[in-house]
Amino acid sequence: MSTLPLLSDEAADAEARAVFDDIREKRQTDYVNNFWRALANDPPQLAQVWERLQQVMAPGALDPLVKELIYVAVSVTNGCEYCTHSHTAAAKAKGMTPEMYGELLAVIGMAAQTNALATALQVPTDERFKA
Amino acid sequence: MSTLPLLSDEAADAEARAVFDDIREKRQTDYVNNFWRALANDPPQLAQVWERLQQVMAPGALDPLVKELIYVAVSVTNGCEYCTHSHTAAAKAKGMTPEMYGELLAVIGMAAQTNALATALQVPTDERFKA
Amino acid sequence: MSTLPLLSDEAADAEARAVFDDIREKRQTDYVNNFWRALANDPPQLAQVWERLQQVMAPGALDPLVKELIYVAVSVTNGCEYCTHSHTAAAKAKGMTPEMYGELLAVIGMAAQTNALATALQVPTDERFKA
Amino acid sequence: MSTLPLLSDEAADAEARAVFDDIREKRQTDYVNNFWRALANDPPQLAQVWERLQQVMAPGALDPLVKELIYVAVSVTNGCEYCTHSHTAAAKAKGMTPEMYGELLAVIGMAAQTNALATALQVPTDERFKA
Amino acid sequence: MSTLPLLSDEAADAEARAVFDDIREKRQTDYVNNFWRALANDPPQLAQVWERLQQVMAPGALDPLVKELIYVAVSVTNGCEYCTHSHTAAAKAKGMTPEMYGELLAVIGMAAQTNALATALQVPTDERFKA
Amino acid sequence: MSTLPLLSDEAADAEARAVFDDIREKRQTDYVNNFWRALANDPPQLAQVWERLQQVMAPGALDPLVKELIYVAVSVTNGCEYCTHSHTAAAKAKGMTPEMYGELLAVIGMAAQTNALATALQVPTDERFKA
Repeated sequence: MSTLPLLSDEAADAEARAVFDDIREKRQTDYVNNFWRALANDPPQLAQVWERLQQVMAPGALDPLVKELIYVAVSVTNGCEYCTHSHTAAAKAKGMTPEMYGELLAVIGMAAQTNALATALQVPTDERFKA
Repeated sequence: MSTLPLLSDEAADAEARAVFDDIREKRQTDYVNNFWRALANDPPQLAQVWERLQQVMAPGALDPLVKELIYVAVSVTNGCEYCTHSHTAAAKAKGMTPEMYGELLAVIGMAAQTNALATALQVPTDERFKA
Repeated sequence: MSTLPLLSDEAADAEARAVFDDIREKRQTDYVNNFWRALANDPPQLAQVWERLQQVMAPGALDPLVKELIYVAVSVTNGCEYCTHSHTAAAKAKGMTPEMYGELLAVIGMAAQTNALATALQVPTDERFKA
Repeated sequence: MSTLPLLSDEAADAEARAVFDDIREKRQTDYVNNFWRALANDPPQLAQVWERLQQVMAPGALDPLVKELIYVAVSVTNGCEYCTHSHTAAAKAKGMTPEMYGELLAVIGMAAQTNALATALQVPTDERFKA
Repeated sequence: MSTLPLLSDEAADAEARAVFDDIREKRQTDYVNNFWRALANDPPQLAQVWERLQQVMAPGALDPLVKELIYVAVSVTNGCEYCTHSHTAAAKAKGMTPEMYGELLAVIGMAAQTNALATALQVPTDERFKA
Repeated sequence: MSTLPLLSDEAADAEARAVFDDIREKRQTDYVNNFWRALANDPPQLAQVWERLQQVMAPGALDPLVKELIYVAVSVTNGCEYCTHSHTAAAKAKGMTPEMYGELLAVIGMAAQTNALATALQVPTDERFKA
C-alpha cells in the first residue's frame, strides 16, 4: 500500500540493515516498524532521520513522555494516520495513562477549536505577547 | 484588523463583561487579551469557550505547563499566528525555560518532517499499533 | 508585501484590464481588490480564475450567501488571512447577520474540535456512512 | 483500528450509556455511531461534546442543513476521513440533493485553489475588508 | 468507500463518457482512474477539471515531470492519500528515478520542518524578500 | 514580533556566529536572514538545520531550482508566510522566470483544488497506483 516496498532485512542493503540493528538494540525489541522499512529504500535518509530522532527525543529539559505527547499532538493536527498510531502507541509504552490520554485529547480538541476561532476573527496579536 | 471590533469593557454587554471580570480575577491580572474582546461580540460563545478552557487546562493527570506546551504545538501546526504568540507567552509565564522551548521546537519540527515522510510514503500502520 | 506587484489599471496589460472592467461591471463597484491585481501578473490565469469563480458562486441549488459561508469556512480552515477577510466581507455584503456569523463561527470551531478528536482516535468509518 | 476500543453499550459505564440513550432518542434511531463509542472511553468528554454539538447544530439563524454543509467543508479541508463521511451522510439525511452536493464540492474546490493562490502571492488585505 | 458511486462507462451519462474517452485517448491507455469515475456524478465539473488539468500540466516553462513533482509535494502536504498515490505513480510514469524520488522526499520533509520552526518562532519577513 | 529576539552577530554566541559566517561564505553575501537569527537562540539546532539544509538542497538528481520550486509549493500549502516569501525570493535568485512562476502557481492551485475534491469524495486508491 506504500509507494515504495517495505524492505525486509534481506532486501535492505548493508547501511540500512545497520540502522535496523541499531533500532532493535536501542529499543530492546526484535521489531522494526514499517516507517523504517519504507525509509530504507534511501539508506542515507534512513540513517539521518533515525540519528536525529534519537537526539530530539532523548531525555533533556523535557522528559521523553512529554515529548511523545507533543509528537502525538503534532501528528494528529497534521492528519498523519501512521504517525498518530505509532506515537500514541509509543506514548502508552512510555507510561501515558488513560487519564493523561483523555486530557491530551481534550487539549488538542480545545486548541483546534480556539485556533479556528482566532483565525476566523483574525484577532490581532496583543503587543505584550511579542518578545 | 479583526473581522469584528475588539470590545472594550464599556462596549461589551453585561454577560461579556462578567466574563472579562472572571478572567481578570482567575488570572490575577488587569489585562484581558484580544481574543476574548473579539469573542465578546457573541457573549454566550465567549462564556462557553472561557468555561471550557478552564476545565481543559486545569491541573489534572497532566500539569498545566505540559498542557500549554501541547497547546503551542497544535497552534503552530495549525499555523495560527495569534495562538502561537499567546500560548508561547502563556507557557513562558507558567515556567517554560529556554531549554524547554528549544526542545519543544525540536520535537515540533521533527514531527512535521516525519509526518510528511510517512504521508509521502503512505506507510501502512503496523498491526501492533492498533488498539 | 506581495511576491509580485499589485498592478494598477495602467500597469496591467489589455487582457488583465478587460477582466478588471468586467469585475467592476459585474460587481457594480469602482473597486478591484488586491487579489485580482496580484493575479494580473499572469493575465490568462486571472481570466480563468475570474471566469470560474463566477460560475461556481452563481445562484443555483445553493444560494450565494450559503456559498459564501462555505467559502469562509474553507478559508479559515486553510488559515488563509486574505481569503478569510475578503470572504467574510463578501458574506456581510450578501446579508450575513451578526447572528448568522456567530453560528458560522460556532460550527467552524466545533468541526475543528471533533475533526481533531476523530483523527486522534482514528475512528473507523461506520459501514452505513459509505455510499 | 482506533487507538481506543469502540465501547458497546455493555462495555460503557453508566454516564456513557446515558449519552448513548440520549443520542438514540434525540436522533430517533437505534444506531450509535463509532465516534461516540470511541469517545465513551472518557465519559465526561463524551457528554461535553454531545451536549455542545446539539447546541451548535440546532436550528437558529442558519438552518441545520446549511450548518451541516459548513461542517462538511471544514472536515474536508482538515482532511478528516471519518468526519467527511459522517457529515456527508448527515447532510444527505437532512435533505442535501445531488445538485447541492455538486455545488458544495465546487465551492470547496474553488476556495482551496484561491486560498493557495492568495497565500502563494502573499496578497495584502485590502483596507476596506477590515472591520 | 467513496461518498458517491464510481461510475462505470455504462452508468455514466454521455457528457461524462465523452470525457472518459478523451482521457483514454490523450493518455493512450484503456484505464480511467477512480478520481474521474467519482467526479462523473457531476459531468460539467468532470469536464471542467479535466480540461483545466490538461492546460496546467502541459509542457511549458516547466517540464511535465517537474510539474508532477510539485503536484506530489502539494498533495503530501495537504495529506491527500489518493492524490499522493496517483501523482507519485504519474511521476514514476514520467521518468522520476529512485534518486529523484529520494530527493523529492528530502525536500518535502525539510520544508515541513523549517515551515514549522518559522511559524513557531513567528519570524518576521525580511524586507528584502518583499517584491 | 518573533517569539525570541533576532540575534545580531554581537548577541550571538560563538557557535551561532560561526554558522552566520558559514552562511555568508557559502551564499557569498553579507546578509544573514531573520530565520537564522531567530534560530540562533539555540545554537546546536541552528547548526543542525543549516547543515541539513545544505545537504538537502545541493545539486543532485534534481537541480537546485527544481528543489526550490518544491520548497515553495510545500511552504504555500503549509501556509507559512515567512517561508513562502524567503523561498520565492530564493527561487527568483536561482533563475525562476515569470513564466515559471506563473506555472508553479497554476500547479499549486490545481493540486489544492483536486486534493480537496478527492478528499471530499473519499475516492479509494486504484490498485494500480500501489507499489
